[in-house]
Amino acid sequence: MKKSITIISDNLQITNPVIHQAVQDLNPDPVKDLVTRCTGAGARAIDINPGPLSRNPEEKMEFLVHAVQSATALPILLDTTNPRALEAGLSQSKNPVIINGFSLEPEKLARILPLAAKYDTDIIGYLLYPNGHVPPGADERMEVAVSLFSEFEKHDLNPERLIIDPVIAPLLWENGKQQDREILNLIRNLPDLLGFPVRSVAGLSNLTTGKGPANRKQQLEMAYAAMLAGSGISMILMNVLHQETVTMIRACTTLLDDRIFSWETP
Amino acid sequence: MKKSITIISDNLQITNPVIHQAVQDLNPDPVKDLVTRCTGAGARAIDINPGPLSRNPEEKMEFLVHAVQSATALPILLDTTNPRALEAGLSQSKNPVIINGFSLEPEKLARILPLAAKYDTDIIGYLLYPNGHVPPGADERMEVAVSLFSEFEKHDLNPERLIIDPVIAPLLWENGKQQDREILNLIRNLPDLLGFPVRSVAGLSNLTTGKGPANRKQQLEMAYAAMLAGSGISMILMNVLHQETVTMIRACTTLLDDRIFSWETP
Repeated sequence: MKKSITIISDNLQITNPVIHQAVQDLNPDPVKDLVTRCTGAGARAIDINPGPLSRNPEEKMEFLVHAVQSATALPILLDTTNPRALEAGLSQSKNPVIINGFSLEPEKLARILPLAAKYDTDIIGYLLYPNGHVPPGADERMEVAVSLFSEFEKHDLNPERLIIDPVIAPLLWENGKQQDREILNLIRNLPDLLGFPVRSVAGLSNLTTGKGPANRKQQLEMAYAAMLAGSGISMILMNVLHQETVTMIRACTTLLDDRIFSWETP
Repeated sequence: MKKSITIISDNLQITNPVIHQAVQDLNPDPVKDLVTRCTGAGARAIDINPGPLSRNPEEKMEFLVHAVQSATALPILLDTTNPRALEAGLSQSKNPVIINGFSLEPEKLARILPLAAKYDTDIIGYLLYPNGHVPPGADERMEVAVSLFSEFEKHDLNPERLIIDPVIAPLLWENGKQQDREILNLIRNLPDLLGFPVRSVAGLSNLTTGKGPANRKQQLEMAYAAMLAGSGISMILMNVLHQETVTMIRACTTLLDDRIFSWETP
């Protein structure tokens, strides 16, 4: 049975001034409002991106987790590189959690990956080199996927908990388009490569990072979202207030899932 | 070098009452008006579908070819099963021509396919059984593709002249969704299967045939068009007055071709 594509909001970010202020004030209302708008717009999971968390990381993450959980029972993604903040969030979560995420960087392997075992959660693995750089080509990206999976096995984690993020390249990068084309193939081939139906996720907002006309960005985002869907992506992390892109992804799901067709299926 | 996707209009059909009347009256103006609208909307080739042509097939096809050619120098597709009308159109064409099309049906092999050789044109081959039925599954569709290619070789035609149409199934068919998913894979695999970069075309309007809400049809059409693009389709035959779908296909082309990215590229 082919599953739906899970739409994850990336809207809850500290770079949003309203959220920044809410975290400073420990005022949950703006956070709850945003989460309610996101779920209304089609989010089926909420990514919490608290930024660098230079001061009181545990307190801030706990505050955000509580605020989100008071608005929704949907899964939450804890999107931080700070292991202390991450563990604070994990210990406070009632909702299902996805850790976002780890990579081959030694610090992540040592301090993030073990938390997925300790709290028995899903975890996103980024296709990045141990130095945090993006692999230059398709072959190198596949090698990193295999290495991530080996680390998963070394830590005795259940492979079904792994979700691979191939790291979409901004179109404005010199070879961004080529990388993003290769990523479509990679997503299609990951299950064969790793020998089980591994899930994948992509951060769609990365595609159109940088200055550019909003309508053109939306068109390119919609087009790439549909191609990701056609490649078998499991989850898309995105600005869910881009309603046309949400509608596009739902139409793709209608075409790709195994339910009987009807015009009305969402 | 990955090429653009050629958008072909399917708007010039005898089922359009304005066109029907124009053909009756041998009045080229409504035909020219429609062609001008289609090219303005993004068509890069014009399919001429004159219907059954029960009376004066040659005269009607010649009239249509002349009318279209007086409005555009773009390639034209002669979309008829009537060999006499087809040859009349071929003999009158100044523009590049694509014959649309042949299949394994004995009548088509005997009377349509040889015209591609005689007039040295591209020709679309439908993945249909000799009895005109749709193959039931992915494997059968591949076998038909191989048989079409064999017929091409038997007739000593240049394989680069072949364009394969996998015949999109209406979503309302019992297993339509499944067939259309399989078609995405087939398009991706055709070049490997036949051993050369064979081109492919899909008739997008087939997808949403039947009664249904127009906005929902448009969403599904856009989603499937983008997935066809991601699978490597060469040409899409469609209602080019669906401007959002044209925009989507162009955005896909921007993502898939090898040109340097800029926000402004059409």
